[in-house]
Amino acid sequence: MEKIRVGIIGAGGYGGCGAIELLHKHPYAEIKVLIDKQNVGSRISEIYPHLEGFCDLTIQAPEDPTIPGDLDVVFFATPDGVGQQAASNWMAKGAKVIDYSGDFRFNSLETYLAYAARIGRPQEHKAQELLPKAVYGLAELHRQEIATATLVGNPGCFAVSCILGLAPAVKENLIELDSIICDAKTGVSGAGKNPNPSFHYPARYDAMNAYKISGHQHVFEIEHELGLLAQKEIRITFTPHVLPLCRGILTTIYGQLKEGTTITTVKEAYDAFYKNDLFVRIYGPEHPQVSTAVRGSNFCNLSLNMDPRTGKLIVVSIIDNLVKGQAGSAVQNMNIMFGLEEGAGLMQPGLYP
Amino acid sequence: MEKIRVGIIGAGGYGGCGAIELLHKHPYAEIKVLIDKQNVGSRISEIYPHLEGFCDLTIQAPEDPTIPGDLDVVFFATPDGVGQQAASNWMAKGAKVIDYSGDFRFNSLETYLAYAARIGRPQEHKAQELLPKAVYGLAELHRQEIATATLVGNPGCFAVSCILGLAPAVKENLIELDSIICDAKTGVSGAGKNPNPSFHYPARYDAMNAYKISGHQHVFEIEHELGLLAQKEIRITFTPHVLPLCRGILTTIYGQLKEGTTITTVKEAYDAFYKNDLFVRIYGPEHPQVSTAVRGSNFCNLSLNMDPRTGKLIVVSIIDNLVKGQAGSAVQNMNIMFGLEEGAGLMQPGLYP
Amino acid sequence: MEKIRVGIIGAGGYGGCGAIELLHKHPYAEIKVLIDKQNVGSRISEIYPHLEGFCDLTIQAPEDPTIPGDLDVVFFATPDGVGQQAASNWMAKGAKVIDYSGDFRFNSLETYLAYAARIGRPQEHKAQELLPKAVYGLAELHRQEIATATLVGNPGCFAVSCILGLAPAVKENLIELDSIICDAKTGVSGAGKNPNPSFHYPARYDAMNAYKISGHQHVFEIEHELGLLAQKEIRITFTPHVLPLCRGILTTIYGQLKEGTTITTVKEAYDAFYKNDLFVRIYGPEHPQVSTAVRGSNFCNLSLNMDPRTGKLIVVSIIDNLVKGQAGSAVQNMNIMFGLEEGAGLMQPGLYP
Amino acid sequence: MEKIRVGIIGAGGYGGCGAIELLHKHPYAEIKVLIDKQNVGSRISEIYPHLEGFCDLTIQAPEDPTIPGDLDVVFFATPDGVGQQAASNWMAKGAKVIDYSGDFRFNSLETYLAYAARIGRPQEHKAQELLPKAVYGLAELHRQEIATATLVGNPGCFAVSCILGLAPAVKENLIELDSIICDAKTGVSGAGKNPNPSFHYPARYDAMNAYKISGHQHVFEIEHELGLLAQKEIRITFTPHVLPLCRGILTTIYGQLKEGTTITTVKEAYDAFYKNDLFVRIYGPEHPQVSTAVRGSNFCNLSLNMDPRTGKLIVVSIIDNLVKGQAGSAVQNMNIMFGLEEGAGLMQPGLYP
Repeated sequence: MEKIRVGIIGAGGYGGCGAIELLHKHPYAEIKVLIDKQNVGSRISEIYPHLEGFCDLTIQAPEDPTIPGDLDVVFFATPDGVGQQAASNWMAKGAKVIDYSGDFRFNSLETYLAYAARIGRPQEHKAQELLPKAVYGLAELHRQEIATATLVGNPGCFAVSCILGLAPAVKENLIELDSIICDAKTGVSGAGKNPNPSFHYPARYDAMNAYKISGHQHVFEIEHELGLLAQKEIRITFTPHVLPLCRGILTTIYGQLKEGTTITTVKEAYDAFYKNDLFVRIYGPEHPQVSTAVRGSNFCNLSLNMDPRTGKLIVVSIIDNLVKGQAGSAVQNMNIMFGLEEGAGLMQPGLYP
Repeated sequence: MEKIRVGIIGAGGYGGCGAIELLHKHPYAEIKVLIDKQNVGSRISEIYPHLEGFCDLTIQAPEDPTIPGDLDVVFFATPDGVGQQAASNWMAKGAKVIDYSGDFRFNSLETYLAYAARIGRPQEHKAQELLPKAVYGLAELHRQEIATATLVGNPGCFAVSCILGLAPAVKENLIELDSIICDAKTGVSGAGKNPNPSFHYPARYDAMNAYKISGHQHVFEIEHELGLLAQKEIRITFTPHVLPLCRGILTTIYGQLKEGTTITTVKEAYDAFYKNDLFVRIYGPEHPQVSTAVRGSNFCNLSLNMDPRTGKLIVVSIIDNLVKGQAGSAVQNMNIMFGLEEGAGLMQPGLYP
Repeated sequence: MEKIRVGIIGAGGYGGCGAIELLHKHPYAEIKVLIDKQNVGSRISEIYPHLEGFCDLTIQAPEDPTIPGDLDVVFFATPDGVGQQAASNWMAKGAKVIDYSGDFRFNSLETYLAYAARIGRPQEHKAQELLPKAVYGLAELHRQEIATATLVGNPGCFAVSCILGLAPAVKENLIELDSIICDAKTGVSGAGKNPNPSFHYPARYDAMNAYKISGHQHVFEIEHELGLLAQKEIRITFTPHVLPLCRGILTTIYGQLKEGTTITTVKEAYDAFYKNDLFVRIYGPEHPQVSTAVRGSNFCNLSLNMDPRTGKLIVVSIIDNLVKGQAGSAVQNMNIMFGLEEGAGLMQPGLYP
Repeated sequence: MEKIRVGIIGAGGYGGCGAIELLHKHPYAEIKVLIDKQNVGSRISEIYPHLEGFCDLTIQAPEDPTIPGDLDVVFFATPDGVGQQAASNWMAKGAKVIDYSGDFRFNSLETYLAYAARIGRPQEHKAQELLPKAVYGLAELHRQEIATATLVGNPGCFAVSCILGLAPAVKENLIELDSIICDAKTGVSGAGKNPNPSFHYPARYDAMNAYKISGHQHVFEIEHELGLLAQKEIRITFTPHVLPLCRGILTTIYGQLKEGTTITTVKEAYDAFYKNDLFVRIYGPEHPQVSTAVRGSNFCNLSLNMDPRTGKLIVVSIIDNLVKGQAGSAVQNMNIMFGLEEGAGLMQPGLYP
């Protein structure tokens, strides 16, 4: 079988690096071109010296005429606004597109504009004709649509953690929908590769903070997806925190259990919901849920707990923000879009310690 | 004026070290004796070399007959169970006692036994005759009782953070009392000086986890103190997390605002409640609340936020767990007990970065 | 082809975990048994939850009679003293042995006893009859002997870093042999999994120190191997330092260049020496030599520098102490011993950031 | 006594913050003005929230006409090039000047130009008429000249560590002068407050590297000062490394002991040399020299070791780069220049852990 020909746009960022780490050893795909606006002309292994000998492609500018046109899939490892400008071009040439940003996470203009309004982006979408094709790329919820999609909006890292932690409880009506609080803790790599005063080593090594309290851009997609499951509008309280670690999101999710719902019922619902999902592991309260259990891997671990004194369900959801929260989900989506085994190139436990 | 003569029991732990750091330069107090079961015969500055030249006292065993009897105050920087065995002896000799553990945080046997039951300690108190004298050592709530106390139970570090973050809202009836969630994040120093597989550097440097979900020993005192303010029983949901940093507790506190309560009302209530409190700083949502703002100092910073979409009050409460959460509160209590300025020896901003 | 049947003794430590991470996905080997004295009866994935689904074998006690006897190779991921007691048993059953400790790094009793004297171990070897078979497991120096060996003494982590950094200069007589200084910096994982006051997170997160100044146990093997290359006795000055990071050894190596030796000559010598070595990368002074370039991989990166004002050669040698410094070298040795491609199971770039 | 009136130029950087931390509580000095080009109009406690209530002065632009002219001393916490432009103005108004940069570390144009050539700065000095007044601000070597100086060039952080570690050995002719190697390890705060890809948290948390091998700007002053002590020209090999910690420089210094020189002789020489120095502590090899022993304090700890097998003296020198390596030395110099106790405002052990 010929390998899937992959291009990566935004190759020089952490999202691009993550895709390269997974794809250079993928059994059925090979990276054909790396595109970025920065570091044009440098080998990627000059930027990321650990890649030396594994991927030594030279970074090309987006407008470089020598970029091959016959790609099977293009990863847009780029922020909001880039994919909506360039995706249609690639799709016209026959490539499928997986976009990391919010550009294609919603399949109607109306929903996209509501999202854009929430986060203060312009009230327009540069490729609105593509929106009906866009599929939300969380395989555990949309596997079938992804399988036939040509355009996937890869989910936000916090969204992966929250949605996977809540989906069965919301779908099976186990908790009061107006009681949901997601208290999320992330490592610094989620903010990307660009230096910033807040993530300067001396400012961060012994520092933690909450930020964007009730205003984070991922809330919209969390509420949207949970709303689809509940078949009604949902509002959650979501507080992100950034901590002095590199990789990992741990979200502590609180919901008031419906009268009479036991932790056993909850466990059964989660087991059933995820019974076909390779990358979701479910644990009871006895399990030590340390974020390193998923570091470097594509897994989401969920531990299910109940506070008997207050009747709260407490789900601890952990992922590696750069893998299941980003490049890993993108490769998982690619596998599904091309009819491959879903875990191809992804069956790795990560590195410890 | 003659200086207050201080003894520290448990001098070799972080709680003892913190007290020495504050007291060696205290204008009205001097350390006369350091007591511990470990490292007996070593100078404290062999254990903590930064203290060399500042405090070079030799650690003495508790039973050492040369320990002076004429102390004005004894700090028990010791875990549950030690103070209740030895406090009465020191009090009989005329010393006041400040105990860091849960032994004297409750002033009735009934309440203590309820606490002991919750955390699985024996159903007895070795110094129950002292309990009626015990005062809960959170100055912002009990300043007047502390002023005349001879026995103070210094509060737990998480409790300081949660109670200060919630007291005005609870007292002024601004939130639904059954809706309170405290999601607490702590640095590793809160676990003390003894090494442990979970806090071994390689296991912790890029790792976070929740623990004791709905079962932490500080919940009892939080609920007890908030109950006194509300004049009714309160149950909270409390989840502690441990993160790869050394110093700091950041607690994100959620409560459903009563219908019609605005953030302005909340701000006024907090300002009024803490108007005489040197060590509480109150901020609106605009303020970057990074834990380093209180690192090395005795301050508690509170930032008040409202999620307008869900009607939640979100208070971010930060302290240094080793200062306001432990040794700093102890010295603050000592100052009040001896009629000194409350901030004596404590007016330091900490160290940054 | 049938897979090589591997057993790991000391499976629960970092050295065992590292071997499992490499071997669970090795194309030609499979792990058949995990042996340890601790955590007997637990699944390895309870100890290391990231391994769940990848290796779920149960840890067995060394004396467990159900341990299969028909292994092809046994890894002793154990400290000095264990291998010399148990290796002969396994070898009698036909297994080859790769030992991580100092037990089989020297192939004569005389040399071993000199080593033992240096580090204060007893003046005896429990398996001296095996010593003539023992081969020092640094593939870049002893590939041919390893290929036919049944017993390999895997090198010390610092030794890998120093010997690879110095071998060509010593062999080609480029530096004054009495001028060698190795200033080594290591991450904490080199000290293993057991907690320790010096590696407790609060004690280490912002702390560095030198230790065992001129007395580290790896000096002996460095001098021994360099002496073989120089064909004369060599003494070096070696200072290890431990720093607040997890993975990595960076050794800064100083040697006085022989009169007239240029950096070009040095570069040519290194290139020639390592021309067939997959896992050694050689760089000039222009290259940023950050330890993350080899983190999680089996590579040793060398950057060659000259101080023109003092005539010193300055080689910066970086490895991942847990891979090329331990489990990676062990697997590389296994590959050679069994006639496999040397890089089988090892061609991974590691994880970044 | 009226307090010394201090101004700080470059107040917003770490060097300015360090001076504020020391001076806000100094018994004989008070900060009258904070000057910077960035953050003009902000309170310093908005930039450094831990200073709130301790120093809330507003940052003024250098050209602000309301800046008071009657300062007693001005700290230039600024990089090379700033002091030489502005110092003469302040001195004309009667202020003494302490400059953190290389601008006034040499008291002749010739030496300055040699320094400038070494580090690639222009071959000119904008205030060469001041150079004859300039005194090198390392109190342990130049206390008497500092006492009468009006212009002090505060030493570089690495230079403090190396010079204090070598001065007695060089002055007393205990080591071969052409054998000196300084292998220096620094925390990230030494690079200042501005973010940078190399110090971005994800890039640094588990990363170490050497840099500017044989080309660091502090080498010149080290060689210059040691040359004065030796009364001959000296060349050293100096390699700086940056590590994932915030505060601290640990320099491992190697020198070939002269034939017959014992460690006892060395110890006596160091004790004698520093017998009047408050901020130098000398230890033998038995002492654990962890950088936290000086973190947050103005001390330099030296541990003296000998490698008996190679005859090398190995001195481990530790300082806090932001205190003894910068702001602390500046305040120490101020104290000496104004006839105060040398330790005024500086007698603090730092913070642990």
